[in-house]
Formats: sequence, structure tokens, C-alpha cells
Amino acid sequence: MTTIHSHFTAVNGLRMHYLRGGEGMPLLLLHGWPEWSHVWRPVMSRLAGRFDLLAPDFRGFGDTQKTSLQPAKDATPDALAADMLALADQLGLERFGIVAHDVGGFVAQVMARRAPQRVQGLFFFNCAYPGIGARWVEPRHLMETWYQFFHQMPWIAELVGSSREACRIYIANFLRHWSHRKDAFDAELELWVDNFMKPGNLQGGFNWYLSNHEGRMAVIEGSAMPPPPIHTPTRIFWGEHDPLFKQSWTDRLPEFFTQLELSFAPDAGHFVHYETPDRASDEIGRFFDHIATKQAKVQRMRID
Amino acid sequence: MTTIHSHFTAVNGLRMHYLRGGEGMPLLLLHGWPEWSHVWRPVMSRLAGRFDLLAPDFRGFGDTQKTSLQPAKDATPDALAADMLALADQLGLERFGIVAHDVGGFVAQVMARRAPQRVQGLFFFNCAYPGIGARWVEPRHLMETWYQFFHQMPWIAELVGSSREACRIYIANFLRHWSHRKDAFDAELELWVDNFMKPGNLQGGFNWYLSNHEGRMAVIEGSAMPPPPIHTPTRIFWGEHDPLFKQSWTDRLPEFFTQLELSFAPDAGHFVHYETPDRASDEIGRFFDHIATKQAKVQRMRID
Repeated sequence: MTTIHSHFTAVNGLRMHYLRGGEGMPLLLLHGWPEWSHVWRPVMSRLAGRFDLLAPDFRGFGDTQKTSLQPAKDATPDALAADMLALADQLGLERFGIVAHDVGGFVAQVMARRAPQRVQGLFFFNCAYPGIGARWVEPRHLMETWYQFFHQMPWIAELVGSSREACRIYIANFLRHWSHRKDAFDAELELWVDNFMKPGNLQGGFNWYLSNHEGRMAVIEGSAMPPPPIHTPTRIFWGEHDPLFKQSWTDRLPEFFTQLELSFAPDAGHFVHYETPDRASDEIGRFFDHIATKQAKVQRMRID
Repeated sequence: MTTIHSHFTAVNGLRMHYLRGGEGMPLLLLHGWPEWSHVWRPVMSRLAGRFDLLAPDFRGFGDTQKTSLQPAKDATPDALAADMLALADQLGLERFGIVAHDVGGFVAQVMARRAPQRVQGLFFFNCAYPGIGARWVEPRHLMETWYQFFHQMPWIAELVGSSREACRIYIANFLRHWSHRKDAFDAELELWVDNFMKPGNLQGGFNWYLSNHEGRMAVIEGSAMPPPPIHTPTRIFWGEHDPLFKQSWTDRLPEFFTQLELSFAPDAGHFVHYETPDRASDEIGRFFDHIATKQAKVQRMRID
């Protein structure tokens, strides 16, 4: 079994942490909230024989350096995408695939628009795309999305971090509620608490919500120009039982992704990659094997 | 100075606590969240020479018995209004005025519709009336109203009650944010923490949000028949700087209150009665003195 190692490198002036393991086509694995690079380990261990897997911690998350221990708005999708492209530069990855979840999905879309020549394929487990629009805050959906506002309160890290117990209650309830199998995270729950109790990690995660607020409001209010469609080959494997990202929200995906394959991940909620890692890994592998094979053919034709 | 005493009596099968002091026309003082009877003490001490003041703790709040220590939906506006009318019966109060804030405002409206012959006047510090409609959840207002959804999470009392510190952080931030003068509650903050750390008091307050959810959704979605207008003399003294209840929301009040006097309370936010008790007491006194005088005249005419 291939070993997965922790690495640190300087990116955009930040000491960035990432996990890396395996050999083959490089894949960047981009986490969500409340996650960090660790959430990709089940998928990484299954795919390390076929791909060069890199799972970074976004700024504010995991073991990547914090930009501030205070509420800050410097973790926009643009900033996180710039970090990821700089990391790829730093590691000499000219081209790569992206596997993204939740926050990572926002970042992957910015990367695909900013550097389409570098992103060979996009694989999403659910996808926060602009076509969701005002459905984020439909009155009956606010029982799901209230936290996107609560996370912007300047005192929330103090509350949730007031004790290890408070942190466990808060984080565990999201992991449970958003999972289809309610005990999916139980075995590793204390690792999650360890992670979010590290100095700055609660606020670091909440800074994503502060930073993304105006962009999200623009989508909700319809005040932003819709971004151009993405032509990169895209696979979306959307958790069938995700209570946060509703299945019906997939209706407008084709307007934003012109080369889209969509299907629903059975027996999984929000965390398809962690809840059902066998199937998630099969789907990631199949999608990027196909892209790698096509690329190899193109390269052979060029050589011939 | 008139003394204010704690009393207990059985109402609807619950041991109900109320503060009582003063002599004159009876006034029921109905609290909001995060409050309990205690919040009325500044007003009570100022008005006890002119009125018989009664400040009950709603079910789930203060020292009134809890119906359950678990999440429950038995604290609807109808249920709380029935408790208040039963309390008035129990104490032999045939007719009375109501002074209401926040949660108490919902309850006062039900009482005025259910027993118009008993309610001599309605005095509100802000008023959650049906005309607010979908404005509760306008996207830009969700930074204020997210808590109405968060409070329905089955684990929130466990989180906020995980320590005295967590409770203080949570409650204090509402008191500060909703006040115009940010230190208005600082001197008594530990009393607030004492209160909400009493067994069942956090969940008791949150049960209001669980119980009122469907009614609030009906108002937001416009799916409920508007209730008939209230013809009881009504005074609304709406905190000029209340960030939660916006001044502009007063526009439809005349559709729901046919005998309305509205003005804005200067130098006050959400808690007019606690933030500016001198002015609040003056306004309460003036309004109910006028009603008491008119009533006395009617009674004299009947006797003559």
C-alpha cells in the first residue's frame, strides 16, 4: 500500500500543508467545511496506485498557516484558487485533474475558468454552482442553510471553541446531519475535534463564510453576471441523500458545464467521498483514467 | 418604594412563576427571548405606584415549570396565550392591560383576539405582526434572523449549555447586538447566565422557536389567512435602533390594529423597556392612565 505523507511548502506567503501519495496523473483533492485534507485519506489510499494524489489544506484549515486568528474576509474563492494554482506551480504540476467537494467545488470552478489549459478534468461531489440561485435561501431550506449566516458572527469561534465538548457537539452534528449513514464519522470524530480545536482552525473555517458572503448574495439576488460556461470535461457525482444540496438543484448544471456527466451517488449524503469511499474512488478512477488515456493518445499522435 | 415579590400558582397544570407589585389597574407584562420576568423590574419599580403589575415567566422560561427538558412544540402563541388567560382567571383579573415585547407580542395579539372584552389596552415594544410577511427572511436580513432556525436544532441547548462560559457568550451577544447602548445588560449579565443555566431554561426558550415555526412559515409564505384586525386601543413604541425589527416593517400595522398610536423609541434598540426604562415607563403610564381614566368615566356614567 502506498504511503501518504504530510508536506509543507510556501505558497502566496503562507506555509501550506498538503497530503501527497501515489503515482500517475496528478489529481488535486479539494476539501469542504467542516473538513480538511484528512477527509480524502480513504479515497487516496484506494487510488494511490493509479494517480499522484495531492490534498491541500486551504488557508485557515487543517495545518496550513492561518492568515489571522480573527474574523477575516481574505478566503474568497478567488484567493483559494490563487493559492491552489500557486501550489501547482510550486510543485511543477503543469496540468492536473481536480476532485472537489463543497468549498472545494467553488474553488475548482474558479480554477477551471482562470486556467482552463491546466485543468484536465473536474470531478465534483455536489457542486455549489451559480444556477442554484435563490434556492439557497428558500424559506423551507433555511432550516439547512442558517449556518452560512451564523458562521459570520464575530463571536462564533469563541462559542464553538469554548471547550472541546462544545466543539465536538457543533462539528459532530453537522457530520451526522449531512451524512446518510449517521455514524459515518463516529470512529474518527476525535480527530475532527483535534483538528478544529487547533488555534485558528474554527475561525479559519468560518472565514470562508465571511469571505464568500458577498459572492453568495450576488448569486441569491441575481445581481451578478452569470460566469461563462466551463468547457472542461466534468463529472458530478451528487450525493443522493445530501440534505443541504438538493437533487433538484442539478437542473441548471448544463448551462454552466458544457461537457457534463451527472449521476447521483447512492447510499451517500453530503460526504460521498468519505461515506462511500469504494464507489467514490471507482468513479474518480474511471473518469480520470479515461481522460489520461485520451491525453496519452493525443500525445502519441503528436509524436507520430 | 413598592416591593416586587415572586409568586407561584398552578396554571394549566404548570407551576407558574410571576413577579407582582404595585396597586391600580392590572397590567400583564409579557417578556421576550432571551428574557424572563426579571427584564420588567426597571419598568415595574417605576410604575408600581400607579398600576398592579404582573410579570409572568412563560412556560419554559424563568422559574415557571418546564413541560419537558427536551425539544418540544407545546409553546405555541396559542398555548402561551391560554396560559396567560388562565393566570388572569386564577388571580381574579377580569380586565387588564398588556405590555408586551418580542415573544410577548405574539401572545398579546392572540389574547386580544381571543378575549377582546378582557384586554383593555395593548402596549408593544416592537411587534411581530403578520404584515411583516416574507421580510423576516429577505436575503439581506438573514444575517439577523438565522437564529430563528438555529434555535430549532435538537442539539443547540447542549451546545449553548455546555458550560457557563458558552451560555454567557451566546446570550450576551444577543443582548449586545440587539441593544442600542451596547453595555446595557453588562451590569446584570451574570443574572442572565444564572437564569439560562437553570435546568431546562435554554431548551425552554428554544421551544418557542420550534413551536412557532409553522405559524411563522405561514406568514412568510403568505399561506395563512390574515387574522382579523384588532380593535383594542394599541400603543406601539418601536425601538428606533432595533436591528432585528426594522422601522420600515411598521408600514402595514394599520391593517392589523385599527386603534393604533405608533412612534419610535429614541436611543433604544430591541429592549426599549430595559435600555430606556424611564421613557418606557412614562409611555406605558401615559397610555394606560388614559385608558383607566376613560374607563372610570364610563363607570361613573353607568352609576349616575
